[in-house]
Amino acid sequence: MIFQISRNVFYKALSNVSRAIAINSPLPQLSGIKINVSNESVILTASDNDFSIEHTIDVTDEQNKLVINSTGSIVIDAKYLVDIVRKLETDIVRVELVDGSLVKIYDSKSDFQINGLRANQYPLIDFSEPELSFEMRADEFIKIVSQTIIATSDKETRPVLTGVNFNYHSDHQELVVIATDSYRLAHKKVHLEGVDDSFNITIPRKVLNELTKLLESEKAVKIALNEKKIQFIFDDSLIQSRLLDGSFPETKRLIPTNFMSEFTMSTRELLSALDRASTYKQESGISTVKLSIDNNTVTLSNASQEIGSFKEPLQVNNQKGDPLKISFSARYVSDALRSLSSSDVNIRFEGEMRPFVLKDPLDESILHLVLPVRSYD
Amino acid sequence: MIFQISRNVFYKALSNVSRAIAINSPLPQLSGIKINVSNESVILTASDNDFSIEHTIDVTDEQNKLVINSTGSIVIDAKYLVDIVRKLETDIVRVELVDGSLVKIYDSKSDFQINGLRANQYPLIDFSEPELSFEMRADEFIKIVSQTIIATSDKETRPVLTGVNFNYHSDHQELVVIATDSYRLAHKKVHLEGVDDSFNITIPRKVLNELTKLLESEKAVKIALNEKKIQFIFDDSLIQSRLLDGSFPETKRLIPTNFMSEFTMSTRELLSALDRASTYKQESGISTVKLSIDNNTVTLSNASQEIGSFKEPLQVNNQKGDPLKISFSARYVSDALRSLSSSDVNIRFEGEMRPFVLKDPLDESILHLVLPVRSYD
Repeated sequence: MIFQISRNVFYKALSNVSRAIAINSPLPQLSGIKINVSNESVILTASDNDFSIEHTIDVTDEQNKLVINSTGSIVIDAKYLVDIVRKLETDIVRVELVDGSLVKIYDSKSDFQINGLRANQYPLIDFSEPELSFEMRADEFIKIVSQTIIATSDKETRPVLTGVNFNYHSDHQELVVIATDSYRLAHKKVHLEGVDDSFNITIPRKVLNELTKLLESEKAVKIALNEKKIQFIFDDSLIQSRLLDGSFPETKRLIPTNFMSEFTMSTRELLSALDRASTYKQESGISTVKLSIDNNTVTLSNASQEIGSFKEPLQVNNQKGDPLKISFSARYVSDALRSLSSSDVNIRFEGEMRPFVLKDPLDESILHLVLPVRSYD
Repeated sequence: MIFQISRNVFYKALSNVSRAIAINSPLPQLSGIKINVSNESVILTASDNDFSIEHTIDVTDEQNKLVINSTGSIVIDAKYLVDIVRKLETDIVRVELVDGSLVKIYDSKSDFQINGLRANQYPLIDFSEPELSFEMRADEFIKIVSQTIIATSDKETRPVLTGVNFNYHSDHQELVVIATDSYRLAHKKVHLEGVDDSFNITIPRKVLNELTKLLESEKAVKIALNEKKIQFIFDDSLIQSRLLDGSFPETKRLIPTNFMSEFTMSTRELLSALDRASTYKQESGISTVKLSIDNNTVTLSNASQEIGSFKEPLQVNNQKGDPLKISFSARYVSDALRSLSSSDVNIRFEGEMRPFVLKDPLDESILHLVLPVRSYD
């Protein structure tokens, strides 16, 4: 195994695939990146067993400056491999399997040797493509994820809630994307054509997080899936993930349709008022704030017996409905506001102890639901 | 106590004085900032008992937009106070002692109330000025500190080594500034006029660190000191610190004067070669690298039985003297190179097991000494 390659291309590919590597790998081999050199390409593979990335660097693409002298394969610890290639300063990097599993990585200046692992010790990953597949615009996919992922759960008690649910109804050509940690919920609905079959899958948050970073400079992504796994194919990359087991909760009936009170206001102003209102945190680190609607005045407040209190009237538009007092987590509402990323937000209340709705007044496709917190004053 | 003040001036002054507050205050009162309002000024005080900052906001300076309605004093938790003033969005902040120790901090939009502590519970800090005093250019003082502070010890076993020693000989008008953790040493010598008496004091690293940040936009600093304490006076600030007890070790005889080998090279290139050489760290997280001079070739190398090896010839100039093999901590040499901040570095070796010298070839005032590490191969 001997090849030389553009340092920048190699470094970018290595840092991309290394996103699949878990900090504490279940198998020691999985802390490595597999390098497989054929006559046509160098293929890099990394995996945490559930989530895998394969990146192909093709010999025919001149940008890669790839010259293959002999084929072979090896596994090298990702932490060192990425670091070494990052630290090299010249244009071209040479990689050579010296002897057994000792690999030489060098340029005209520096010479690294590193002990690898034989590639036959690396687990076999089945990258076969599922039958159901379709294409999406990369920016549309990123927007769907970024508007919903904030509502996923970070607790492992109900694993299916740590992912984002994608539910496609082929009859209506409608994709409903939902995330919830059972205290808040994000609900996105988009029209989607060119998909043959209905599906209902839940994708792990970690995979979506890494994927949105990898997709940033892409135009389109091909998505292929079955009941067990999903693949994202773009450029020279193939991202594959197991899907989360378990049925995602039915949430349709949770979304209120009758409202007793509502208003619209600047998202930026509400965010900064919530930031002020969270100055005094409870011991748990959570900041529960109170919103009161009374005589057409909307007031945000917070009080802590030991520390002090906060009060601020909010500048709202189109305030309608009945007086109301409601307490909620400042962080949940701030997260929802940031993920909406609209200039204004419309907030609708069904009742003092009922979940309330946050919406972009100009975009019907997305809504956030936040459960209030019981307050004792 | 009622006053109003420019939000920006108040915020800047509060964040400056809060640098003196320890994360774990020895006394609960010391997690607060004392606000003392007289007819002439608002004086802010913060302290960790050893290190104190007093900042005066004068009513006569129009920039301060300070209007004092009534005098008084209070202590407010620094964490909340700085946060509140940072989060306010208007130009003018009003502060009012409402009742007992409850303080109202508000602008035209938001209204905070916070429970303070009565000022008589705050420890008395003696800010009287010591007799021996002199002036220095702020940039010169910052340079002295930044070139030496990196060699201070972070271990509390010998407290005097956690500071920087300033030793002034009035006969020669010479200030010698030294820091050492006993594995490396920084030695700076400057000419200094206008000081009446000799002194030999050690200033805590924490104080110097904070001070260099506060001095950044200043022209000059007045320094006043006695055997127990030092003051730094500039602009509207007074920084005071206790000095470290204990006599600083005599280090003059440690600095070698005869050399068996030396070379000069680009600081930037040596830094990046050391970074590459530190890729494989020992379990302790320390990276010991080896330098060999042989047949006019200087080579940097590193080897770890389990992980791998590294080798790189260095591009040096003016290489003179005998062959040599020496091992040292890559971090100690990198720290010294960065603090020299010169384009080239001259390195001189007295022997394989003797401390070696790093110097800026264009500046005789500063030298760094690094102790080699015994190596077993």
